[in-house]
Amino acid sequence: MQKVIWKPGNMLYPVPAVMVSCGDTPENYNIITVSWTGTICTDPPMCYISVRPERHSHAIIKRLMCFVINLPSEKLLRITDLNGVKSGRDMDKFSENHLTPVPARKINAPLIGEAPVNIECRVVEIKPLGSHDMFIAEIVAVNVDDNLIDPKTQTLHLDKAKLFAYSHGFYYLLGKKMGRFGFSVKKSKK
Amino acid sequence: MQKVIWKPGNMLYPVPAVMVSCGDTPENYNIITVSWTGTICTDPPMCYISVRPERHSHAIIKRLMCFVINLPSEKLLRITDLNGVKSGRDMDKFSENHLTPVPARKINAPLIGEAPVNIECRVVEIKPLGSHDMFIAEIVAVNVDDNLIDPKTQTLHLDKAKLFAYSHGFYYLLGKKMGRFGFSVKKSKK
Repeated sequence: MQKVIWKPGNMLYPVPAVMVSCGDTPENYNIITVSWTGTICTDPPMCYISVRPERHSHAIIKRLMCFVINLPSEKLLRITDLNGVKSGRDMDKFSENHLTPVPARKINAPLIGEAPVNIECRVVEIKPLGSHDMFIAEIVAVNVDDNLIDPKTQTLHLDKAKLFAYSHGFYYLLGKKMGRFGFSVKKSKK
Repeated sequence: MQKVIWKPGNMLYPVPAVMVSCGDTPENYNIITVSWTGTICTDPPMCYISVRPERHSHAIIKRLMCFVINLPSEKLLRITDLNGVKSGRDMDKFSENHLTPVPARKINAPLIGEAPVNIECRVVEIKPLGSHDMFIAEIVAVNVDDNLIDPKTQTLHLDKAKLFAYSHGFYYLLGKKMGRFGFSVKKSKK
């Protein structure tokens, strides 16, 4: 395989595309879509979002030191894209997108009611890196649509949420299920 | 939508599943698969991987302060899974998986020749968080399979790489392409 060398750039894909909600009153509730997000620690459960200082949500999260990561399902794709392009300075992200703010349990922020999973996060550090500041956070609660949970086994079927990924400028639905973690060493191979 | 509240945990999906390669001599070359990885800054381009201190690669990366993120294509899925389960203490990850180590351009580490994209990273900080240490890194070079690049336009067609994502215990191929970033505000909607 012949390789071309490119200058340094972001080429780590696929990544999530999630809606981050924040604010402490309906008047300043806001939503920003980010793809620079991920899990950074299993125990304690921690994650991050990276946000440009000039974004409207940046000041809100910095002031309140908390935010919600909302996983969007396929039917929220257009709104997810819109909330990454438009600023909360110019529109009310909840009402104009017909999204329902629901109070979070553990933090001072609204969940997006229509998102199947809402992850409540408390910021422990803001790390300036350049174009983006990284908000390092502890996960303090997780809210899950109970239609995704098997009532008998209590197993979460996250695939029913119809999540999508972001890869080099495009959104993709998750496609063919290729195996479970550890399948390569299991005797009954999938 | 009725929501169930769960205790804090990692529920941010889909995420990448990438093979990280490291080492300064063929004898200590190693590979570890991680999903706790992401982009943290656009300019300068920066990313991270989170690794448990007890993993074999942890000491190697800490000593050399560099690593390569290799994006695996569909045909590398089984090896990707295996390299997340098995330890480099017990197997030679390159030779036993028939992978080709190729010297990186800018850092002291091997690329995985068979991976379509290799991202060379230099560690700038190691941040202990609990179960995992976060290796915060600058991207110093990107190597791309030239079959993914349109020879006329020089456009990268990353979808040809057949990447996959990891979501709540399972690997999924990227599926239906749903639109380009910004499609929600374009006049010619996709």
